[in-house]
Amino acid sequence: MEKETRIYGIRAVIEAIKAGENVDKIFLQKGLKGDLFSELESLLKKERFNTSYVPVEKLNRLTKNNHQGVVAQIAPIKFYDIDELVTSVLESDKKPLFLLLDQLSDVRNFGAIVRTAECTGVSGIIIQKKGGAPVNGDAIKTSAGALFKVPICKVDHIKDAVFHMQASGINVIAATEKTEQTLYQISFNEPCAIIMGSEGKGINPSILKVVDQKGKLPILGEIESLNVSVACGAFLYEAVRQRSYSSADAL
Amino acid sequence: MEKETRIYGIRAVIEAIKAGENVDKIFLQKGLKGDLFSELESLLKKERFNTSYVPVEKLNRLTKNNHQGVVAQIAPIKFYDIDELVTSVLESDKKPLFLLLDQLSDVRNFGAIVRTAECTGVSGIIIQKKGGAPVNGDAIKTSAGALFKVPICKVDHIKDAVFHMQASGINVIAATEKTEQTLYQISFNEPCAIIMGSEGKGINPSILKVVDQKGKLPILGEIESLNVSVACGAFLYEAVRQRSYSSADAL
Repeated sequence: MEKETRIYGIRAVIEAIKAGENVDKIFLQKGLKGDLFSELESLLKKERFNTSYVPVEKLNRLTKNNHQGVVAQIAPIKFYDIDELVTSVLESDKKPLFLLLDQLSDVRNFGAIVRTAECTGVSGIIIQKKGGAPVNGDAIKTSAGALFKVPICKVDHIKDAVFHMQASGINVIAATEKTEQTLYQISFNEPCAIIMGSEGKGINPSILKVVDQKGKLPILGEIESLNVSVACGAFLYEAVRQRSYSSADAL
Repeated sequence: MEKETRIYGIRAVIEAIKAGENVDKIFLQKGLKGDLFSELESLLKKERFNTSYVPVEKLNRLTKNNHQGVVAQIAPIKFYDIDELVTSVLESDKKPLFLLLDQLSDVRNFGAIVRTAECTGVSGIIIQKKGGAPVNGDAIKTSAGALFKVPICKVDHIKDAVFHMQASGINVIAATEKTEQTLYQISFNEPCAIIMGSEGKGINPSILKVVDQKGKLPILGEIESLNVSVACGAFLYEAVRQRSYSSADAL
């Protein structure tokens, strides 16, 4: 976790947020009151940060310093702006392949997905500010360092990212079992973005309504549930196959 | 871990082994001597069990009973005999698709792979008695119960399993980066077995020498390392695609 830093103290955290620091998650002391604390709370609400109300003991474990009831974890990577990222990818000579993660919460799955994304040439990963896995030292470790290589954007809602992609001419494909179509019937040859859902709930139904295509992995067994990082790998490699290996001499 | 049971006491463990119980791993007290203990040790060596020499405190944590320096963990599943399994698969109307794991050691990866194997209709998984991930309650949990659905065989050496497969007319394909051929250039349409290597070292070079084909996942990034359960999923789904979805109307 050596790549992770923490900021503590109410005023310090307010200033860090206003300065645009890469705040990943904020721990607040349960039951705390006060004007400055309320100011912080409304700022956090407005900016949709990932917050957690915890007992003071948890905060004392996070830092030995005088935290005043607030500790913010700073992400060890720089987040990209979605506008700038999409524009730069569209202007490059690479065919866009984005990955949208809808509140995927397990840090090991997140790390494995980032690693696969790096290996399959993904242009960028979009995550939601709230509800996702923390972008911390553990994520970097399980990503085998890929978190430093693949651009990551944080957005308020994944749905906003879907609209953003569509407005930029990027085909949005949901990985979901709620369809008859398999991923082998979908073309990944156009600029596209793949959405993966959370471990427990899959993709939010309101997002499924607005996507361009839905594809599932065929399930031949009875368990009917794949690990999300494995499923994501199968989707990304199908995109790789179609883009580079679906010529006449391939099988 | 409720699905796991333990046997303790030297004589009890000897009898369990002789009775063919599903012993997964045996913990032995460091520095212990004695005739009966030596008898157990030679039996373990002969049968190539997964053993670990530990301080007495570790054994005391495993059981509160009088363990006499030996605790055996019993696997929560029944293991299949490779001869019987291969024969029954060949006699069935299903096209064989086996998975061979060469000392894959992480229990979460093992569980995710078993889960993917169940979803892709794998006929059976062959693991090595020594050096692999434990087949315990954690493995069952991460497999989402798939360990109860997919037949698992334990063999002395994965190489024996390779020869066994080849002698039964099953094409053995190694998933390895040590080849120029991608998995998209390999046919999975014949009866086949896929070998995945361990997290750190990949497939043993002596096994790579005897396989029928080698295939790699193309790597478009710089990290050049995929999580083994993700890589395994991409291989198994390529087999599924070729076997069911590579007709003219698929992409």
